[in-house]
Order: sequence, then structure tokens, then C-alpha cells
Amino acid sequence: MEGEDQSMTDAPNGFDESHAAPAAAGREGGDTIIKNGMNVDVDESEEFSDTDEAVKSMYRRGMLPTGCCYDDRMKLHANADFGPSPHHPEDPRRIEEIMKMFKKAGLVFTGPDSDLLDILRETPTKYMWRIPARPATKSEVCTVHTARHYDWVQNLSQMSTRELRTLSHKLDQGRASLYVGGMSYEAALLAAGGCVETCKNVASGQVKNAFAIIRPPGHHAEYDVPMGFCLFNNVPIGARVCQNEYPDTCRKILILDWDVHHGNGVQNIFYEDPNILYISLHVYENGNFYPGKPDNDMIPDGDIDKVGEGPGKGKNVNIGWPSQGMGDGEYLAAFQKIVMPIAREFDPDMVIISAGFDAADGDELGGCFVTPPCYAHMTHMLMSLAGGKVAVCLEGGYNLKAISNSALAVARTLMGEPPPKMGVPPLNKDAARLLARVQAVQAPYWECMRPGIIEVRELGDNTSRLHDVIRGYQRQILAEKYSMIPLFIQREVLYKSFENQVLVTPGLQARRKILFIIHDPPELRAMPDIIDNTVDPHNGFILDGVMSYIEWAHKNDFGIMDANIPHYITHSEDIDAFTPRADEKTLQRQIQELVCYIWDNYLQLYDVEDLFIVGVGNAYLGVKVLLTNRGVINFVTGNLRPVKSETDTELSSWYKQNSLVYVTNDHACWTDNDLAKKVLKKRFGGVHRSPEVGLNRMMEAHAKEVFEFISERCSEDRSGNTTEDEK
Amino acid sequence: MEGEDQSMTDAPNGFDESHAAPAAAGREGGDTIIKNGMNVDVDESEEFSDTDEAVKSMYRRGMLPTGCCYDDRMKLHANADFGPSPHHPEDPRRIEEIMKMFKKAGLVFTGPDSDLLDILRETPTKYMWRIPARPATKSEVCTVHTARHYDWVQNLSQMSTRELRTLSHKLDQGRASLYVGGMSYEAALLAAGGCVETCKNVASGQVKNAFAIIRPPGHHAEYDVPMGFCLFNNVPIGARVCQNEYPDTCRKILILDWDVHHGNGVQNIFYEDPNILYISLHVYENGNFYPGKPDNDMIPDGDIDKVGEGPGKGKNVNIGWPSQGMGDGEYLAAFQKIVMPIAREFDPDMVIISAGFDAADGDELGGCFVTPPCYAHMTHMLMSLAGGKVAVCLEGGYNLKAISNSALAVARTLMGEPPPKMGVPPLNKDAARLLARVQAVQAPYWECMRPGIIEVRELGDNTSRLHDVIRGYQRQILAEKYSMIPLFIQREVLYKSFENQVLVTPGLQARRKILFIIHDPPELRAMPDIIDNTVDPHNGFILDGVMSYIEWAHKNDFGIMDANIPHYITHSEDIDAFTPRADEKTLQRQIQELVCYIWDNYLQLYDVEDLFIVGVGNAYLGVKVLLTNRGVINFVTGNLRPVKSETDTELSSWYKQNSLVYVTNDHACWTDNDLAKKVLKKRFGGVHRSPEVGLNRMMEAHAKEVFEFISERCSEDRSGNTTEDEK
Repeated sequence: MEGEDQSMTDAPNGFDESHAAPAAAGREGGDTIIKNGMNVDVDESEEFSDTDEAVKSMYRRGMLPTGCCYDDRMKLHANADFGPSPHHPEDPRRIEEIMKMFKKAGLVFTGPDSDLLDILRETPTKYMWRIPARPATKSEVCTVHTARHYDWVQNLSQMSTRELRTLSHKLDQGRASLYVGGMSYEAALLAAGGCVETCKNVASGQVKNAFAIIRPPGHHAEYDVPMGFCLFNNVPIGARVCQNEYPDTCRKILILDWDVHHGNGVQNIFYEDPNILYISLHVYENGNFYPGKPDNDMIPDGDIDKVGEGPGKGKNVNIGWPSQGMGDGEYLAAFQKIVMPIAREFDPDMVIISAGFDAADGDELGGCFVTPPCYAHMTHMLMSLAGGKVAVCLEGGYNLKAISNSALAVARTLMGEPPPKMGVPPLNKDAARLLARVQAVQAPYWECMRPGIIEVRELGDNTSRLHDVIRGYQRQILAEKYSMIPLFIQREVLYKSFENQVLVTPGLQARRKILFIIHDPPELRAMPDIIDNTVDPHNGFILDGVMSYIEWAHKNDFGIMDANIPHYITHSEDIDAFTPRADEKTLQRQIQELVCYIWDNYLQLYDVEDLFIVGVGNAYLGVKVLLTNRGVINFVTGNLRPVKSETDTELSSWYKQNSLVYVTNDHACWTDNDLAKKVLKKRFGGVHRSPEVGLNRMMEAHAKEVFEFISERCSEDRSGNTTEDEK
Repeated sequence: MEGEDQSMTDAPNGFDESHAAPAAAGREGGDTIIKNGMNVDVDESEEFSDTDEAVKSMYRRGMLPTGCCYDDRMKLHANADFGPSPHHPEDPRRIEEIMKMFKKAGLVFTGPDSDLLDILRETPTKYMWRIPARPATKSEVCTVHTARHYDWVQNLSQMSTRELRTLSHKLDQGRASLYVGGMSYEAALLAAGGCVETCKNVASGQVKNAFAIIRPPGHHAEYDVPMGFCLFNNVPIGARVCQNEYPDTCRKILILDWDVHHGNGVQNIFYEDPNILYISLHVYENGNFYPGKPDNDMIPDGDIDKVGEGPGKGKNVNIGWPSQGMGDGEYLAAFQKIVMPIAREFDPDMVIISAGFDAADGDELGGCFVTPPCYAHMTHMLMSLAGGKVAVCLEGGYNLKAISNSALAVARTLMGEPPPKMGVPPLNKDAARLLARVQAVQAPYWECMRPGIIEVRELGDNTSRLHDVIRGYQRQILAEKYSMIPLFIQREVLYKSFENQVLVTPGLQARRKILFIIHDPPELRAMPDIIDNTVDPHNGFILDGVMSYIEWAHKNDFGIMDANIPHYITHSEDIDAFTPRADEKTLQRQIQELVCYIWDNYLQLYDVEDLFIVGVGNAYLGVKVLLTNRGVINFVTGNLRPVKSETDTELSSWYKQNSLVYVTNDHACWTDNDLAKKVLKKRFGGVHRSPEVGLNRMMEAHAKEVFEFISERCSEDRSGNTTEDEK
């Protein structure tokens, strides 16, 4: 239905005369009006003897109007391959709906032009000032794109409808994700030219700030190829033209991209440019969200580690959310913790917002929940930069209602409305951790990101990983108290992390009762100095829930085997970088190897009657491996693991009866009724929802139950004389 | 000279008719004008079918003017006790200068009233809207003050000049710090009433926001007593009246006080009020900066631990700078890290700024460096709260030029000017640490302050201080490598911190050469999880520069004594709170006791020929105690300590020749030429400025020099065969 969409029939020739004409006319009279608006102030400000020129000129800008660029002809870009399918999300009506909303809200004057000129002469800030769009020139487009790319787009206007339809169908597939039509070239030129005019008006101080309602969008278009609904990359063209035309006053530009998709095109065009700071907030989903990975299987463009290259190093900031579902809390936190500190430090001469509204509440493609008030607040914060020189350029956003409400909130803020009162929802924890990671990644390039970040390389020699210190201490304590000694584990390579990994009480081979504890390293909490991250050891704390279990076992005459499972497997002398946690698979393999080794070389040779296994934390997956044995107690905060065996069909039932699995109260499985039911099935064992949160708290809370569970199942204790404890 | 100050002669009766009259006249016509200004929008907004009422009314507010309250009669408060002394800083001209600046800058219309009415009808936002001051009523004042206090102030107008002079002289002393005059009562009523009118205009939406140029200031005045240039506490009166008159729309109020002095009066009046959030940024100087401590010697009012009481707990936030000299970097950081997050979470219905401008660059009393652009940015940030309802009320500020420039920047921002482009200077480290402490103190009351803070009480049992873990590990290593064992130290009370404090190699008593290392605990660095402060031990690091010294000494056949000096002396089971570091004196006593004990009971009984002492960090003061002995090497980042003895006059000379004192490159002593010269004198020993910063880096860098120094001085090595090492 597109291409002859009903919205187009309002203006059959593609021009909305009633808009285009006055915009052009207004332009003529524009300079006069603006000068008139300023005259009073210029005169009065001559009284200032002791206030400097910069402050004076700043004050004049407050009496300038907010600009608005719109041209109905940009609706002419429509899909040549229309058919029975529903509207393409990049619907020509997108720009029209926004313009309608601006008119409804009274931001754009709807009466006759003669009246508008009078009104603006008196009150230049009452309505938006119209900035007419014009086709970008080839040389403007080629500040960013290759001539070959320009020609490719231009050629669209020469193709037959049939050819266009075939091409459109082909381009719609995969990462290209694009449609074309017979007027796409003309519309794309207007979008780029409108963006250029908008940015130039802002940069040169003709308007206070401005909003360009343009399409097709631009931020996915690479320098040499169109993609993601984008033909020319409007914002970079606008930025480059301004840098060229106002080299002294518009050198450094911040491009803030809050479209829900990463602006790969903008990033790559400026990847080595020190004068363009590109900050993008987008859904990343580990590289699975559009635009995802380039074809050549490199790191996804939207990755936080993409920080720019060469002279542009640190001038690319990706805030890639781990999942959809982000909203006001996360966006405001990103602005407070990352965007504004870095932007202030960069101190741009102009701010361009690549303003997609597909992170808006209501946009299904984006799946996020940013409200119009939040867009207003983000705009308001950015208006504190660059003396208020902010150009807002439309990118994506596909829910017509959501985009027009969001754009309205932004435009009102540009025009000086106080941003609306809003409560801030709590911050998603994964998002908070992502922001901390972004801070760490950007710390080498921005002073404001450095407090709180360690550069491991600079720590020097004489450095030990705390991990080894803690295990060394545990060995010392366990040796002193229970004469425990390291168990020899044969390994191909010896890593520092494995020293003292398994400690046992002496004479283990002769014990009838053995408690085998497989545990994560103890928890460590500390509040480091805000500047240099030194931690006062006195105010650092080790939470080691395992110790009281060992003490109980020792008192009750168990042999004890204590295995520490580090989260990291590293090379012996690797202290030159932060190491990411071992992934699930590596960890699983490591634990299986260890547990099998212990089984094959020790436990199965022993004369043990009762073997109890306690799994703590991630290490609990080691328990699965030993499940042909006796009682099992697990404490779980991470993944729950089903136990089944294809050879022993009774295993799951046995597990259910002979295990205690304590799951942390805030585990995701409890948030969903269906999930909770599943978890309580037998293959997950004797699952209990703990009233406590966190490993150590659970271990403390359930110690008594566990000791009873074990006592009841011990061969010599099966008479059941534990009633005293139960009281 | 005051009271008949030349500025008063411009308007001999104390009234500036040309201001007062049009303000009153303007008031009459005001509602009409404002309604006119809105009519267009009201009509147009009727088109909105799908936009809610709140958004519509918000938009109307953008077409409202900024209010300005001023009345020349407030200059009539002047010191009855004028004499040969220069102007009192709380000079009547303060308000006049600000008003003049507003006029000069064109914010306030200076032409005839008839013109103003016409202009405002057309362009309601072009000039500030005049809010006339009026005397506050007794019942208004008594929403905050006792009737007795009101009567005391009223009585000033009944006193003779002679009585006033005596009273003024008396009140000028000490913490009261106040002057009075015959018209003080009238002026104080106008200031309070002007503040009430300003706040009411903002709260009820008559104006977009407003600036009240009022004096005498208010924020030091307690509910029952005047002090610190303040008679009635204007801002609390304005806040209370608004809460009473608009209970539904103006329930929660944020009072942001950026006066350089703490607003003790505001704090105490609302100390138990949950609906008034008081945030003060002020110079604290450990309670020594005005207003300092209340007479009864309690905690100073401006302390960060003053968080409110009862239902008001957490609704008092003191950001008390450790010293003067703060500027834009610190104020913006405070806003970003503390003020705005807490304010957003509080979500006020109105913001009142207690706007003293004595933290401004140029104010000698304040000694800070906040620039007008920074005031603009702080205002801009606060304007994002409460739908933009911001009332600014003048408090202190004594440099006429600084206050008028600062006030101008604030007023322009209120009127919609973009805040000027500004670079942000780096953040003072002590200020950054103060902000981190404020965060920790406020964490129990504000969700946004919690990430990054540990609540020790909640850690539970099974918790060890990391301190003890690390020393336990060191003992394990030193025992394994060098068979070192703990030395018995007789103590009256045994603290956990002292376990394993002194470790020695076996057979120490028989060694000829002993290296005695007195050191701080090793440095610990870690990056904890942003949410719950858990530290991955794998990504935590211990920097222990002492180990390589011990290794060298062991290889070179020294007996070794290793003493660890904890920064904290705590009770054995105290894990229920963060412990502040032991103060200098306690630390010194502890070290002296320890070192003397070791000397008396061990070292002096030994048959040692060469004793070398290495002091590391704070522990280096222990070295002083042992200075009747041999070679000394110190690494210093903290205080430098002179060594002299009244009995042994040669001691200083000996120390100079027989010591190496490495001082960290960033030590304060190097920033001042005179200081640096002093430090190089003999009583500080053989001081060297290290090219490195920090203990561990120094220990690494100078190891070779130190080993040579020791080798050269050893009895058997005095032949000097260390040349090989020197190459």
C-alpha cells in the first residue's frame, strides 16, 4: 500500500504547498525578524562595561527562536516493492505525524503567513522558526560518503519501477534491511540537506537550537553502503559541513545517539576523528540486536570496547544495554554517570542529537520504555552544553503516537519549557553493571571516568592476586585448627589459582564418614577509596560460610575434603590485566575434571560408608558429577541444574529424596509461577526457596537443617536420635 | 558610616518610588497580562485530544515570566553601631547592586510603566515580572519562629539609637555575629514577606520561576534566636506558608542552600520534617568555619552526620567541604553525584534555593571560586526538578561585584538562557572523598546512594576483616620461605589486630646483622561490583613491597624482624561497623609502646653488631624511637618527622648521615620552595625526593640503592666490595 499511501493523497504531487511556500518566504524575511528581535538587547547591552563579549552574545541567543526543519517531499521515499504485506515500519507518515503534533501543540504557527511575520517580529520565541529543507549538494554528501555511493543512490531515480521492486525485495533481506523507491534519491537529498541547514542555523547562531523532522534516517548508512532504512548519513554530513564552514566556532561536535539501535555508520565514519565525540545508547544484546555484527564476523559495532582508533581513541562511547526493556531509570543513570561527565569534559562547540524515538515506551521494535518526560530531561541536560547549541535530527522510531509525543517533549524543552516533574524508577542492576563497565573501558581516555578504576598494568611487581592471599589464609587456618593439608592433584599445567585448591583432614582414606564441600571462593566486600581504589584492609570483609560447616563436621568426626573452585582460570603469572570470569563451559569442564580426578584417584578407593556432598554457589555443578553417591546439599544463587541420567532412570527420584537444594530468595525462577513449578520437579532435587538472599546468608540460616539432614542419613545415626537438635 | 550610607541618599526616605510604585501597579494588571499571554495556548491546546491535562498545563507555564522581588526599603536595615570601622560586609547596597545589574542587563524593564504593560501583554517572557515585597504577618513569621523571637525583633523598632548601638555592639561578638538598627524590624518583615510572595507566586504557577533580592538574609536565624546577620529565617517562612496554603500541590519542598556557610537555622527548623529536604553545600573545616559549633559543644551543625531525626531522618544532607578553596569542579561534582540524584529521588513539588553568593569567586569571606557560569549550570540542573518551579532567595555574599554577576547568571538561566559553555576544572581529591563519605552517610535513606556502600552490620557471622586475612597469609608465606615465627609480645589486652604482628627469623638473638622492618599493612586495590560491593578476589591485588627486602636480607644472611603496624586498633570482635583510622596520637603511642617493648625485651639483649631499620609509611615514626642505633631507611608518603634529642645534640647530624629518607614525589613539602628547603635540613635525615609516587613504587624503585646503603655500612662489608652491584 505504500508509495500511494493514503497520507500521500493529501498532497498528490508530493508537495504540501501550505508548508513549503511559507517556509521559503519566511526564510527571506527571517534575518530581519531575528535581527529585530535582538535589537533591543543589543542596545541595552551596550550599557555593560564590565561584562564580557561572550556573555553578551550568549544573552542575545536567548531571544532567538527554536528552529524546525520540515518538508513534506521527504514522504516521497516509499517502498517500490509494496504488496499485500503491512506497512513497512519506516512509514512516510512518521514525519507528518510529528509535524501535526507540533502544530496541535501550538509550537508551529498554523495561521496565515502575514500574521506569523508580525508575531515573530514582536515575540521571536513564541513559535518555532521554520528552517526550509533543500537538497544536499553532491559535494556535501561526499564529505562523508564515496562518490560511488552517491551515484548508487542517484541511480535509483533512473530505474524502472520493476527494477526498483526487484532491488527493494533483495535489499530487504539480512543486515542491509532497506527499501527503495523512485523518489528515494530526492527524499534522501532533502533529508541530508535539511540536516545540513538545521545544523548550520544552530552553529552560526541564527536560531537558539533546532529540530529537524527528516527521513529517510541516516545513522546506519556506512560511508560506502546504505543499510538499515538509511541511504545518506544525514547527521555526519551536517556535522562535517559545519566543521568546514565554521572552523573556528564549530570545531568539536558531540553526536549523541539515543536511537535504540547502534549508529554503526556514524561510529565508523568518525572512528579516527578526535573532534567528533560519538556517544550511543542502544540495545546491544551481546551483539544480537540490530545492526549486530558486520559480515566479516568482527566484534559487533555496538560493543562497549569500540572506543575509536588512532587520534579518535576515546572519542567513541558505546553504552550498549545487555537487553531490551530499559527505561527512564537506566537512561537517566547513563546520562548522569557517563554521558554528561564525558560530554562536559569534551566541552563541545555544538551538540547534534541523533534522535531516534524507538527506545520510546510503545515502540515494539525497540522494546524499551523511555517516556516523553525522560526525553525532555535528556534534552534539558544536553542543552547545558555548547552554550545551548543543540540540533535534534530525527532517526528511527516507528510507533507514530510514541514518536510524536516524544518529539513534542523534546521540542518543548528546546523552546524553554521546564522539563516535567518526574519520578525516577529504580535502576536495573545489569544496566548499572554495564555502566560500570563502560566507565572502566573509557577510563584511560577521560579524567572524569578514572576515579574508581584500577589500571592493573601500573600496579607493578610485588603484587599478588587477593584470591591467592585468601586461599593461603584459609589453608593456614584449616591447618592450624584441623591439621588439614593440601591434596595432591596431578595437572598438566600448574596454575597459581590451583595452589591449595583441595585441602583434606589427615587419614581421610580410613574414614567412614566424609563431608565433601565443593565451594566458590569466599565472598569479599570492601569500600575502596574513591580516588585510587586502595582498600583499607581493616574495612574489607571476608564472608566465609563454609568454615562453620567444617567445624561441625570436625566435631562430629567426619573426614573433610574442602575444594575451592576459582571463578577464573588464568596463567600463573598473569597479573597484567583484569581477567573476565571463566565462561560457564570452561568452568564446568574444570569442575568435572577436578571432581572426576578426586573420585577416580581418591574417593572410590576409600572405605567410605557415608559420603555427603555440599555444593556452594557455582561450584554446585560439580555435585552433578558425583551423583552416584549419597546425600547432597546445595546452595544456589546462579543457574539451577537438572539431574538426569539416561542409564539410571531412577537417578532423578533418588536426587529429589536425597538432596537439599536451597535457592536464594531473589532467584529469577521465583518471579514466574510456571518456572517455579518446574523448579520444584524432581530432577532439580529437593529445592527449597530460602527466605535469605546470597550464599553466606543462606549457609548461616540453614546450617541447623543441613546438619540434621546429614545426621539423619548417617549409617550409625539412622536410629534418629537427633531430636534434641530439632528443638 | 552605615545607616547613612551614601547609597541611601539616592532615596532619602528609604523608598525608591520609581520601583515600588510600578511594581504595585503591575501587580494589579498582572493576572490579566498573564492570562492574555496564555490565551492563545489555551485555545490551541483544546485541539489536543490525546495529551493529558498535566502536559497541557506544563506547557502554559513556559509562556509565564520569571518573577523578581525587590524593595528598596530593605536597605533600611543598617548598623546602629556605625563608627570608624569600615563597612560591615552585610552592606545595604548588596541588594541594590544586584537590581542595578538586572536592569543593566535588560532583565528588568527600565522604561515607563505604560510601555512595560504593553510589552508584557505581547511578550510575557521578555522581562522579569515584578513581585512586590510586603511585610510578612506575625502569623506567617510564627510558622517558623517563637512569638518571643518575633517580639524581640519587633522591639528593635521601639529602642533608642543609644540602646540599639549598645545592643548591636554586644551582638557583634562571637557566634551571634549580628547588627541591628532602628529599621531592622521593618526591613526583616519585608524580606520575609518578599520571600513569602516569591514562593507563593512560584508555587501557585503565577510565574514560571522567580528571584527574590532580599535582605537581611535568613538561613542562620534559629527558631528562637537571631544570628549570623539574620533576623527572620525567610526561606523556611516562605516554605511553610506555601505548604499551608497549597497543601495538595506544594507538599514536598527541596531547599538547596549554596551559601558558603551552613544554614543551621533552616536545618534545625526542619530537622524532623519529612517533607522538607534540606541540602546544604558549605565550607565545614572540621566545624571551625562559621557557624561552627552550637554553644553547648555538640556536634557542629554542618557535620555530614547530621541527617535529620525521627520522620525527618535522611531529609537533611550536609555537604561540608573540608576546606575553603573549592570551585566549579567541586560544586558540579557535588551536584552530579549527590544533589541531583537525591533531589530526583525526593521528587519535590517546589525548589527554593537559599542563594548566598559568598562561595563566588572574589568573595574573601568565603574563599571559594564558584564562577557565574557554574551558578548558571547549578540553576539549570535544579530547573529540571518540580516542573521547573524554582524560587531563588538571596542569602549571604559580600563582594558586590561577585554577587551581582553571580545573581545575573542565575536570573538569565531562570529566564531561559542556555547556561554558558564551560570547561570543568579537575576535582579536588579531598572534596571527592568528602562526597564519597556523604554518599555512605546518606545511603540508608536514599536508594540512589546505596550502590557502592557496604552495611557492615548486615554482613553476618563468618566474617573476617581482610586485614587479618592478609597478615595470616603473610605469616604463612614468611613461615614457608624463611621459617619466620611470631614473636611474643606481652600485652594487657589482646586484640585480633595484633595477632602475628611481629614475625622473626629463628635464632635472632644470635645474629650479628639484623634488618628490622617496621611497615604499614600492604596496599590493597580492588574494583568492587557497583551494586553490592563484592570484590572478585581474582581482581583484587595486594601490593607488598616489603617482601623483596626480606628476601634480600635473607639471602645476605641477616636476621629479620618484621613488624606490621595496623592503621586501626579495634576490639577483638568488633565487626559491626566501619572503624575510622586511629588518630595520629593513638597510632604514635601504639608504635612507641611496641618499639620500646621490642627494644627493651629483645634487641638490647641481643649480640647484634649491625642493626638496620627500615620504616615504611606511617610506621616510619617508630624509627624515631630507635634512633640511638644504626642505619635507617624510610619511605614516606605522610608526615615527615624531624629527629632531635635534647640530651644527644649530635643525634640530628648522625641521622642526616646515616639515613635514607625517600619522600613520595607528590608530597606536599615539594610544592613550596621554603618548605622543601626546610625538609632537606639535617634533622629530617637524608631526605630524597623520589621520582615515584606511593609506597610500593618507591620501594621497588629504590631497592638497589637501599641494599647498597646497607651493604656499605655493614661491619664486615666496610671494605666496600659492592661495586659490582653499582654497575
